[in-house]
Amino acid sequence: MPTFIETLCQQAKAASRPMAQLSTGEKNAALLRVADRLSAERGDILAANRADLETAREAGLSPALLDRLMLDEARLAAIVADLCRVAELPDPVGTVFDEATLPNGLRIHKVRVPLGVLGVIYEARPNVTVDIAGLAIKSGNCAVLRGGSETLRSNVALAGAIRRGLVGTPIPADVVQLVTDTDRARVLELLQMDRTVDMIIPRGGAGLHEFCRQHSRIPVITGGIGICHLFVDASADLDRAVEVIRNAKVQRPTVCNALDTALVHQAVAGKFLPRLIERLAADGVSFHVDPAACDLLAGRSDAPVQVAGPEDFDTEWLSLALGLKVVSGLDEAVAHIAEHSTGHSDGILTEDEANARRFVAAVDSAVVYVNASTRFTDGAQMGLGAEIAISTQRLHARGPMALEELTTYKWVVEGEYHIRG
Amino acid sequence: MPTFIETLCQQAKAASRPMAQLSTGEKNAALLRVADRLSAERGDILAANRADLETAREAGLSPALLDRLMLDEARLAAIVADLCRVAELPDPVGTVFDEATLPNGLRIHKVRVPLGVLGVIYEARPNVTVDIAGLAIKSGNCAVLRGGSETLRSNVALAGAIRRGLVGTPIPADVVQLVTDTDRARVLELLQMDRTVDMIIPRGGAGLHEFCRQHSRIPVITGGIGICHLFVDASADLDRAVEVIRNAKVQRPTVCNALDTALVHQAVAGKFLPRLIERLAADGVSFHVDPAACDLLAGRSDAPVQVAGPEDFDTEWLSLALGLKVVSGLDEAVAHIAEHSTGHSDGILTEDEANARRFVAAVDSAVVYVNASTRFTDGAQMGLGAEIAISTQRLHARGPMALEELTTYKWVVEGEYHIRG
Repeated sequence: MPTFIETLCQQAKAASRPMAQLSTGEKNAALLRVADRLSAERGDILAANRADLETAREAGLSPALLDRLMLDEARLAAIVADLCRVAELPDPVGTVFDEATLPNGLRIHKVRVPLGVLGVIYEARPNVTVDIAGLAIKSGNCAVLRGGSETLRSNVALAGAIRRGLVGTPIPADVVQLVTDTDRARVLELLQMDRTVDMIIPRGGAGLHEFCRQHSRIPVITGGIGICHLFVDASADLDRAVEVIRNAKVQRPTVCNALDTALVHQAVAGKFLPRLIERLAADGVSFHVDPAACDLLAGRSDAPVQVAGPEDFDTEWLSLALGLKVVSGLDEAVAHIAEHSTGHSDGILTEDEANARRFVAAVDSAVVYVNASTRFTDGAQMGLGAEIAISTQRLHARGPMALEELTTYKWVVEGEYHIRG
Repeated sequence: MPTFIETLCQQAKAASRPMAQLSTGEKNAALLRVADRLSAERGDILAANRADLETAREAGLSPALLDRLMLDEARLAAIVADLCRVAELPDPVGTVFDEATLPNGLRIHKVRVPLGVLGVIYEARPNVTVDIAGLAIKSGNCAVLRGGSETLRSNVALAGAIRRGLVGTPIPADVVQLVTDTDRARVLELLQMDRTVDMIIPRGGAGLHEFCRQHSRIPVITGGIGICHLFVDASADLDRAVEVIRNAKVQRPTVCNALDTALVHQAVAGKFLPRLIERLAADGVSFHVDPAACDLLAGRSDAPVQVAGPEDFDTEWLSLALGLKVVSGLDEAVAHIAEHSTGHSDGILTEDEANARRFVAAVDSAVVYVNASTRFTDGAQMGLGAEIAISTQRLHARGPMALEELTTYKWVVEGEYHIRG
């Protein structure tokens, strides 16, 4: 007798076989049907969300969490609009590449196929339910969704609308499965379903990622944790460098591609640091500075500056805090990044092309920047049209993962009754 | 105080950073130096191997295992020649792809970089030690090697020669680490080193793969288990189909790409099966046939035929046994493959292009064949020049994995002090 989780995953696996052979047109039409259904059921969806919000308020959830959980007409309309945009994205499935004819006449190529079944474990935000379902359907995959207990009613309403929207299309409703039992033991069980689930995507904090790595028999896409650096080289345009650092730190400090540490070349630190601090202090930024930077700032006791503690350069701030360190040059900057970066997004600000090349060669992060804000590490910003996760692991995909990263390939070998000699 | 395994893995990780920046010429020159060193030390290597063989004989290892373990002058020369050929292969590291300029002027591309540190767990064959070390060095990776206890002395001699060959090159000897403690607990420990090891490659039987999936915190490349099928369509050229099936079954029956089950269209089964059985029985093949095929063969009680048992279509024979089943047509063949294949290598023999297309679309194995033997699933045969494993999992790489599959990529984003709006 299969368990609840086994049944969900087996249903998804069974649905994944026909999914792989659908045309782009069939998938796009189904996405638009789902979008219509979500709009039609918005009254029920918003009512379910209000019930989740009320419970969450009674449970004393923070205003930030309540905000992440909240849906209203405008937010739901935006979610539906995003889904319609997924229908417009190019479909990676069926793309042929690496074609060759071997000396013996065998013709070989690779063709993109869906990964199969995605297991997604996430918290709070109910929009993830629709985002993932949309990207999964577009890429020919099935999704087993396990959202947080605080959004259960919203997710039941959303996943129900998605499944009802699929009725009458060539796509079986079973491509989207919601784990409605929010006992944490079900997560553990899901991580063992390596016969039916092909990839686990955790969307949450470091604890969730660690839990998945520890317990999963299925490959886990870890990511989303960014201790991000920008190095201000001696040749940098300092005025513009201030603005890039400000953007990277201030524009949206709570996300993984926000800046955590600025490294400043000693040759320009005396000039640069006071300007940087003055500009960003006005935004409410507080600074954690190494002793060398401290010395340079002596006498500016009005600034929100404190000496960096031993953990500060290994902290993803997710707030208006910024580490500052003076370095002797590019080599020390690269060494600091190698030691402290999480391999998410790191960059150099410089006018020196040779230094830019050396930095790009030496820094091995998912996204390496020259003269740009780390905030561009984002599927939409990088022209991928959508994003399911930002990978900081090394296999399969690095950085923003979009539709193509939800596919794999198969080899096709065609011959004339070829035998191996 | 780090453990033995932690120390090996940390040394490999530390060596991996400079490795990533070496030129192709530096890596090739180092490979040739290692080849010279292996030749120079062949006396010691063969003596160590003789000692391993003697112990193995005393322990009562099978003749097949003893043969896998054995090195002689000719085999060692072939291993060294293979290593020299790796130096001639194209280097995937540094390849730039997916270049684009975004509407805001940001220039983006991906560039291939080494994966980092490979953990390889294998049995018996000492040639694997040199093969993996060579492919790792060429692709800029480091390798932590854990061979079987029965080859420990051979592996110590081989890995020692490799490391001594690297002295005086820009490549640190620590890029190749041998786990000389053959206690199985060390394997378990290696599988936990997710801070330093990027990929686990098990080379062995189903038990080893299962053990790795169960216990590894590091992504595992599983593969090498092939229950392979060929479907003889009604339109197939039956004479040539017999020869393809014979090649797939008989040429080297002990390997994963050898044929396990032939599915035969009912319209031609009466004509085809007797010819197939007559031809392959002469090679010593025995047949496990479904009842429908049995009926067609009634009266041929001289043939080495038995009724297939319940497990026979889920068995990787690795011997001169072959499953035979009569199917009603392409759909039943595809359904049988979906149920019984391990996703390694499956094919159709047909003269009907529409059926070939339908089969290729519907069968989702790492390599799907039209009119060719499954024996071509091999890095060298498919023009990749080398092979580190054959993946039957879906992430990162499928089918033969060669140098490019030992790399990942990083994104490089270049701007003019771009900030996100």
